[in-house]
Amino acid sequence: MDDISIDFLRDENINGTTLIEGLPGIGQVGKLVAEHMIHEMDAEKIAEIHSIYFPPQVLIEKDGVARLVNNEIYRCDGERELLFLVGDYQSTSSEGHYLLSSFYLDIAEELGVRRVITLGGYGVGHLVDKPRVLAAVNHSRLHAGVAQAGAVFTQDEPGGGIIGASGLLLGMGALRGIEGICLMGETSGYLVDPKSAHSLLEVLCAILQTEVDTTRLLERAEEMEHLVEKLRTTEQAKSDEELNYIG
Amino acid sequence: MDDISIDFLRDENINGTTLIEGLPGIGQVGKLVAEHMIHEMDAEKIAEIHSIYFPPQVLIEKDGVARLVNNEIYRCDGERELLFLVGDYQSTSSEGHYLLSSFYLDIAEELGVRRVITLGGYGVGHLVDKPRVLAAVNHSRLHAGVAQAGAVFTQDEPGGGIIGASGLLLGMGALRGIEGICLMGETSGYLVDPKSAHSLLEVLCAILQTEVDTTRLLERAEEMEHLVEKLRTTEQAKSDEELNYIG
Amino acid sequence: MDDISIDFLRDENINGTTLIEGLPGIGQVGKLVAEHMIHEMDAEKIAEIHSIYFPPQVLIEKDGVARLVNNEIYRCDGERELLFLVGDYQSTSSEGHYLLSSFYLDIAEELGVRRVITLGGYGVGHLVDKPRVLAAVNHSRLHAGVAQAGAVFTQDEPGGGIIGASGLLLGMGALRGIEGICLMGETSGYLVDPKSAHSLLEVLCAILQTEVDTTRLLERAEEMEHLVEKLRTTEQAKSDEELNYIG
Amino acid sequence: MDDISIDFLRDENINGTTLIEGLPGIGQVGKLVAEHMIHEMDAEKIAEIHSIYFPPQVLIEKDGVARLVNNEIYRCDGERELLFLVGDYQSTSSEGHYLLSSFYLDIAEELGVRRVITLGGYGVGHLVDKPRVLAAVNHSRLHAGVAQAGAVFTQDEPGGGIIGASGLLLGMGALRGIEGICLMGETSGYLVDPKSAHSLLEVLCAILQTEVDTTRLLERAEEMEHLVEKLRTTEQAKSDEELNYIG
Repeated sequence: MDDISIDFLRDENINGTTLIEGLPGIGQVGKLVAEHMIHEMDAEKIAEIHSIYFPPQVLIEKDGVARLVNNEIYRCDGERELLFLVGDYQSTSSEGHYLLSSFYLDIAEELGVRRVITLGGYGVGHLVDKPRVLAAVNHSRLHAGVAQAGAVFTQDEPGGGIIGASGLLLGMGALRGIEGICLMGETSGYLVDPKSAHSLLEVLCAILQTEVDTTRLLERAEEMEHLVEKLRTTEQAKSDEELNYIG
Repeated sequence: MDDISIDFLRDENINGTTLIEGLPGIGQVGKLVAEHMIHEMDAEKIAEIHSIYFPPQVLIEKDGVARLVNNEIYRCDGERELLFLVGDYQSTSSEGHYLLSSFYLDIAEELGVRRVITLGGYGVGHLVDKPRVLAAVNHSRLHAGVAQAGAVFTQDEPGGGIIGASGLLLGMGALRGIEGICLMGETSGYLVDPKSAHSLLEVLCAILQTEVDTTRLLERAEEMEHLVEKLRTTEQAKSDEELNYIG
Repeated sequence: MDDISIDFLRDENINGTTLIEGLPGIGQVGKLVAEHMIHEMDAEKIAEIHSIYFPPQVLIEKDGVARLVNNEIYRCDGERELLFLVGDYQSTSSEGHYLLSSFYLDIAEELGVRRVITLGGYGVGHLVDKPRVLAAVNHSRLHAGVAQAGAVFTQDEPGGGIIGASGLLLGMGALRGIEGICLMGETSGYLVDPKSAHSLLEVLCAILQTEVDTTRLLERAEEMEHLVEKLRTTEQAKSDEELNYIG
Repeated sequence: MDDISIDFLRDENINGTTLIEGLPGIGQVGKLVAEHMIHEMDAEKIAEIHSIYFPPQVLIEKDGVARLVNNEIYRCDGERELLFLVGDYQSTSSEGHYLLSSFYLDIAEELGVRRVITLGGYGVGHLVDKPRVLAAVNHSRLHAGVAQAGAVFTQDEPGGGIIGASGLLLGMGALRGIEGICLMGETSGYLVDPKSAHSLLEVLCAILQTEVDTTRLLERAEEMEHLVEKLRTTEQAKSDEELNYIG
């Protein structure tokens, strides 16, 4: 078994100029955006990636069929040549993160990719009413365009840098001359956050100069709001009861 | 030293069509079933596997003889060509799980195996009166036969997928065209569970269309029941005493 | 991707006879000294090192540009041929420490280095008024010169030896015939410690028979003293208030 | 840098028929015995072993000279061809334990070794008045001789097998046809235990049919007894004081 292996599901129409990474991470923000786009743009799976750096695990799908955890590449057919990198997990080890990101950049180069856009969440530890979209780039010439699309560059955020594929694809991409943009939706970090994903998607669409129907993401954001509201009410009720009891 | 090595103890009659994996895991359910079958079917050890991915340890056997921890392959002589994979430990590392499972599938292919059946426990966190046998397969065409044999496919179980050799042999087997079935006996997860093993064995026998004497397993299950009952009584007595003391 | 890779930023004037290591460590003492010298001596960056043994991370620099974490080599142009090894992180793994240090010694040998001076902190667990500079060497013939420069050799310190690059460059250097000196500024271990760095710099300058303006380091040391003093006063005030409250 | 490397300090008289391993472990029992024998038998260091599987560390020796942590082979000149394997540390990783033990057996085979005797402690969790010496072997034919020398073979001890080099050299040695004996001095596991080492040494001498002056070991054992007695008295005094205070 190779440490990392890729299986292409078709031979033709696999090239792309932009790779959008939405692997699991804080608030699942990047994953939500990438999977939403794959669904709305009717992107098609073109490759599956397996690796000893993923957890040693299968997931159970419908009909009780087990599937090895993986990362997948989707491609948007038609005039826009977008590729999407999504998946179940990132690496379990520090070295694996480097080796997987290096592998992804090899594939990206082979497929003609000239720009990588990585998506993630930026955890702030409290619920956010109007989530900002923070950005980082791997070349200063990309700064203006990304800011114009509505992303925010701040001096101090994210303080600890960017960890995992979202960071490495930018840092290692720069060494190979591949342009890189990282968009991070502000999020509490405690919950899956479709609202933050919605904000991020708007910025991403502006960068890509495309439009994507956001209805489903907005619906999920509203469901989440209701859920949070319900949890709050229950907690408040509990707290009131306790006060009555004590009083 | 190779990272993984196998020593065959004989050259002839080592082929098999079905490999049954019963390595250590939750409630030792898979291990109990595989070892019971090896004993009842008079299967013979045909190979020993050593690896740097096992714990760095020897076990002491009779006469104080130390033996390197290992995994072993047994084979059932005669018309049924069953192979059994059992052993002291699974891998100590995430990467090792992948590399060992890959190695096992290499061996399985060499020996002519077309189907792998992996056995394990499914921990539910409480004592189970009538343990169900959950199942997963690596191809939807296997679903009906396994269900007919008495195994249960549910939408939500096991939620986190299947971890370790029991999962990987299915997931990685699928990529090689080897059929895979995973049977998981419901169990508390706290105790070695021969009752769950007994339930699992019945389903396995139905799948294999064979019969195995289950007397010894039933006896162990009864011993375990008595042990649990005794523990419960003691705990109850303690608890009563404490109440008396307080009262 | 190589496990460790170096990119030289120029081809000429890259040789040096002494390599000064100031990677991150206890109290950031070594890092402070090396970075101060690089600034004061106007040393120029000649190489960048990337490795899968560093954390999988990018840092954000001005204009929101992400940079892969790295180690860097600076060189002091002119008659003194000093090289500096500085960087964001040391290895994340035990094996990585060995492999990186071995790599650094390979580079050092190629560049003509005959002596390595490693800088670090020696954590004592309490604030130190007049920090001593402890030393270790990798050959007894170096002892006298280092002691004469003001460093202290004690029987019992550091008790656990020296961990990481500062230790390995000495130990592994000895096996290759490269002279090695380790200077450790006494420090609490709780705070970044420019005062300890200042003491260490004085000893280092005596060893190198050079002079470096220490004004900026002294200023930072004073700022740190004020900060500590302020923290102490606040703590005392809080403590007094609490006593009042209780009383 | 090789993952494991050995440097021989001389070319002649390096062969041996028996290798005695006394690396660090529980109660330092094995280390105490091996180092005592090296001293008493005037054994000479013939090789140093370095490895990325040891901690990334140097130790400071006299004159402040740093030395890379290592394992060492000593040899007893003269008619008895004994080799000793001692050192600062065992492996930091599970895989490293296997790779180092495999390396040691390669060296042993090259030097003509036909028998390995590994020394260790067996932690029982309480102070032991008359420490037994437990044993394991890697072939049943060795059992009688070892028992006759005074070692004890019990059914249940050590329950978890033997971990690290002491175990692996037996288990892996068996696969190569090298005889292996493991002697384990009973010890609390909390303290360095020269008394247990003394018991172990007596059994080892009987096996080797040799005599070694045990005076120094007995002296250290007595010092340790006094220390323990003193600690006990102090604890008792403290405890009495507290009772007085409460009373």
